[in-house]
Amino acid sequence: MELKVYCDRLSQPSRAILIFCKANGIEFEEVKIDLGKGQHLSAEYEAVNPIKLVPAIVHGDFKLFESHAILIYLASAFPGVAHHWYPADIRERAKVHAVLDWHHSNLRRGSIGFIFNNTICLAFGIPANPEAAAKGEKLLSASLARIETFWLQEDGPFLLGNAKPTIADLALVCEIMQLEAGDKNDRDRILSPHKRVVKWMEDVKSASAPHFQEVHAIMGPVREKLEQLKIQAIENPE
Amino acid sequence: MELKVYCDRLSQPSRAILIFCKANGIEFEEVKIDLGKGQHLSAEYEAVNPIKLVPAIVHGDFKLFESHAILIYLASAFPGVAHHWYPADIRERAKVHAVLDWHHSNLRRGSIGFIFNNTICLAFGIPANPEAAAKGEKLLSASLARIETFWLQEDGPFLLGNAKPTIADLALVCEIMQLEAGDKNDRDRILSPHKRVVKWMEDVKSASAPHFQEVHAIMGPVREKLEQLKIQAIENPE
Repeated sequence: MELKVYCDRLSQPSRAILIFCKANGIEFEEVKIDLGKGQHLSAEYEAVNPIKLVPAIVHGDFKLFESHAILIYLASAFPGVAHHWYPADIRERAKVHAVLDWHHSNLRRGSIGFIFNNTICLAFGIPANPEAAAKGEKLLSASLARIETFWLQEDGPFLLGNAKPTIADLALVCEIMQLEAGDKNDRDRILSPHKRVVKWMEDVKSASAPHFQEVHAIMGPVREKLEQLKIQAIENPE
Repeated sequence: MELKVYCDRLSQPSRAILIFCKANGIEFEEVKIDLGKGQHLSAEYEAVNPIKLVPAIVHGDFKLFESHAILIYLASAFPGVAHHWYPADIRERAKVHAVLDWHHSNLRRGSIGFIFNNTICLAFGIPANPEAAAKGEKLLSASLARIETFWLQEDGPFLLGNAKPTIADLALVCEIMQLEAGDKNDRDRILSPHKRVVKWMEDVKSASAPHFQEVHAIMGPVREKLEQLKIQAIENPE
């Protein structure tokens, strides 16, 4: 049964799903939906995902969107997926769900608020919004502090004190990696106070190498392109 | 093994969990954490939930917060829970996850944005914020339209075309019921364009009667109290 992953590597949850599939040997076709070209708004894509966001999957005749739901589905539907990604024990599983639920209203909301309004908006022809970016950074920094002092508080290197990563580690680290699309000084200012977060990110990268690095290879060119757009926006304000 | 549910019936996800337990014959102790008195900020409650929000549960030696994760855990840990609340089939389950994930950034965010900034803020001594309330109402109305035209689009009376409710029906309807804490004209203006949503809410209430009604009995008195606070705020602006 064929699996298609509709995604844009510029999107952090798209990257999480691509890495998950590659790290677990799941065969799939990557169908690029170019957000910058508005392909997610096409009637063709609406038939795949009526919410018009990436990522989405089609597995045989089954369509699904929302990246956390997709990760859980893939971990459940493909028997080759290693147990640690989505543990069967209901208490361990409940903790993974709790991290992912927390993520929605905290890390993800802060990260999107900062990086979209600071940088990525330029790719869509939208001017930067420093006030919204500052509000996003505040929530992003509070979320990173919460990861540092609570979600990573136990002995193991991964979230919840686990010895190996779960889908939550992958989802959250891909979110934080979105900072790579922006200014390096911004990234350093935001990340450097959180040493354990930085260490954890490296551990997640190592645990999903070389796929993590391959899927994130887009970030350098994206940052350069966005830097050019930022310079143009400063030189030619409208 | 004893189950404690830490909650305030003023909180919509707290109500969802109470109704779920009662509807499924799960024995539990309801521990009220009075949000208006700031009991969620106490050191005692921080030991239960370091995020300092309600609801949270303690089941034996297991602590959990995030309401969706709690609903899934309860459906999985208590064998008496009827299958339809959280189906075992991985595709049906994936759709339930997708609704719940969507809920975080859409219905819930819009609902909280509207009702908190319009009304509930007064219970915490915070002045109303009409601009934030209007922004919340816009997202809330768009979310209700999405429920009407997509999540309820299939034949069955419940979300995803199901014949019986899932935990997602309960979570989303409890969220919309938060409008009962505010002005009736506001509620009617927001809900009345969405006939199918209104019908679905009645179906969810019937399917979880009499517990739904009993747990929501607080809403009338809460509305009256908030109306008084609103009148005081208008008469004595600071």
